[in-house]
Amino acid sequence: MLDRDRLDDAVKEQYVASCHALAELARRETLAWFRSAQLTSDSKQTLEFDPVTEADRAAEQAMRAYLARHHPEDGILGEEFPPVAGRSGLTWVLDPVDGTRGFLAGTPCWGVLIALTDAQGPFLGVIDQPYIGERFLGGLGQAQLDGPRGRSRLCTRPTDDLSQAILFTTFPEIGTTAERDAFARVRDRVLLTRYGMDCYAYALLAAGQIDLVIEAGLKPFDIAAPLAVIRAAGGVVTDWQGGPATGGGQIVASANPRLHAQALSLLAA
Amino acid sequence: MLDRDRLDDAVKEQYVASCHALAELARRETLAWFRSAQLTSDSKQTLEFDPVTEADRAAEQAMRAYLARHHPEDGILGEEFPPVAGRSGLTWVLDPVDGTRGFLAGTPCWGVLIALTDAQGPFLGVIDQPYIGERFLGGLGQAQLDGPRGRSRLCTRPTDDLSQAILFTTFPEIGTTAERDAFARVRDRVLLTRYGMDCYAYALLAAGQIDLVIEAGLKPFDIAAPLAVIRAAGGVVTDWQGGPATGGGQIVASANPRLHAQALSLLAA
Repeated sequence: MLDRDRLDDAVKEQYVASCHALAELARRETLAWFRSAQLTSDSKQTLEFDPVTEADRAAEQAMRAYLARHHPEDGILGEEFPPVAGRSGLTWVLDPVDGTRGFLAGTPCWGVLIALTDAQGPFLGVIDQPYIGERFLGGLGQAQLDGPRGRSRLCTRPTDDLSQAILFTTFPEIGTTAERDAFARVRDRVLLTRYGMDCYAYALLAAGQIDLVIEAGLKPFDIAAPLAVIRAAGGVVTDWQGGPATGGGQIVASANPRLHAQALSLLAA
Repeated sequence: MLDRDRLDDAVKEQYVASCHALAELARRETLAWFRSAQLTSDSKQTLEFDPVTEADRAAEQAMRAYLARHHPEDGILGEEFPPVAGRSGLTWVLDPVDGTRGFLAGTPCWGVLIALTDAQGPFLGVIDQPYIGERFLGGLGQAQLDGPRGRSRLCTRPTDDLSQAILFTTFPEIGTTAERDAFARVRDRVLLTRYGMDCYAYALLAAGQIDLVIEAGLKPFDIAAPLAVIRAAGGVVTDWQGGPATGGGQIVASANPRLHAQALSLLAA
């Protein structure tokens, strides 16, 4: 069985190239529906809880077809369709539209999430924002942003005190009362808190623009790609108890270990 | 004295062209600072309440220099520097970086706001998002978006019931307890509520992507350009009592008059 430590350089390059190819496919399919009148009128009935759009399905189908052709030995976990069991030990985790509510409202802060995992968890990930044309990729020695200004390196910030930190979350929408209280203990200590960015907040953390993302109620699909990208950029991602983040649920992502320890301590208090 | 009804077509074209020229200047100046390491480290001390960045000042200076050269007869109201009295009856209202917190955090949802007003208020406006390369312009017969996909027409949505409406706000950050309660009465009736988009939410309303924006504590600079753009696209902008929005404060912007009446009634309840 393969894992991240048993891939030779040619295979690594192939996997990074496949990440870009998958993201291009998802970009085309999602943009065909983004800010389209059809989407707006068709989806109103089901929007309230878990909007599933044509964009989501079309993008995941296109990515699954690519993987069936180019990586038939790998497994697939996607949000819209049943899992595909693999034989290689590697599994692709796909969330074609993370932030469906933001997508439906026309914001530029939803994203396509693509991750490659082995038994230890995600080790290669992409957060792609198709409308802006931004792609955050991390893992297998890469940590880079391709965007309107060309290519740059992803590197998290050295902020070492909460009082200087910028915090993002999708609260107040998500979470129990206890979770909101825990979040508030961190919020009350940071420099600045911003709301409602979905996966784009993790991308900003990897790009060294912000310091913390705290969320609850995440699904494994939501966190696999951000986890790989943020780690590749120097950050830390765990659950609120400091354990593995791969299962989703309560997630805290930090620019560096010092800040992470401070956030964990307040979340547990 | 000039007003919107006494401009001939050549002068109207000139004013629209000046809007584009001003937005281009502001784009260049703000992007020079957006996501720059210098900004992040220099601004941390003063970020907490009203971050004033180099980007803000540089963009406003560039726009003021353009106006001094091309429209010396018009007045200027800008956020960063003292007012310039005009002789024409027309005044430019400039907010070079609306959403300074979003700017500092690296989000793509801040904007450059440019408006032209007469004694009745704003009648020509621009909301420009430099990083995405999107410009929402409305007034003097124009209502258009120039962006990554070329040019399209701005037109608000026909949504005629709150239960089908998408609402945006910068709450929970802004507002008194009474204001938050009033906001909650609307929030509890709409299909979907999203947070934290600054002026970009008004642009989405003009583009027919969302239905309502409700805010409090706005400054006149914050609302002049959105007001002109949204009206040109078919929407309605007033204060929470249905009066003029030009003074800032409590603002409600709606896709159409029917929805606006429903929102006003709940805000007043």
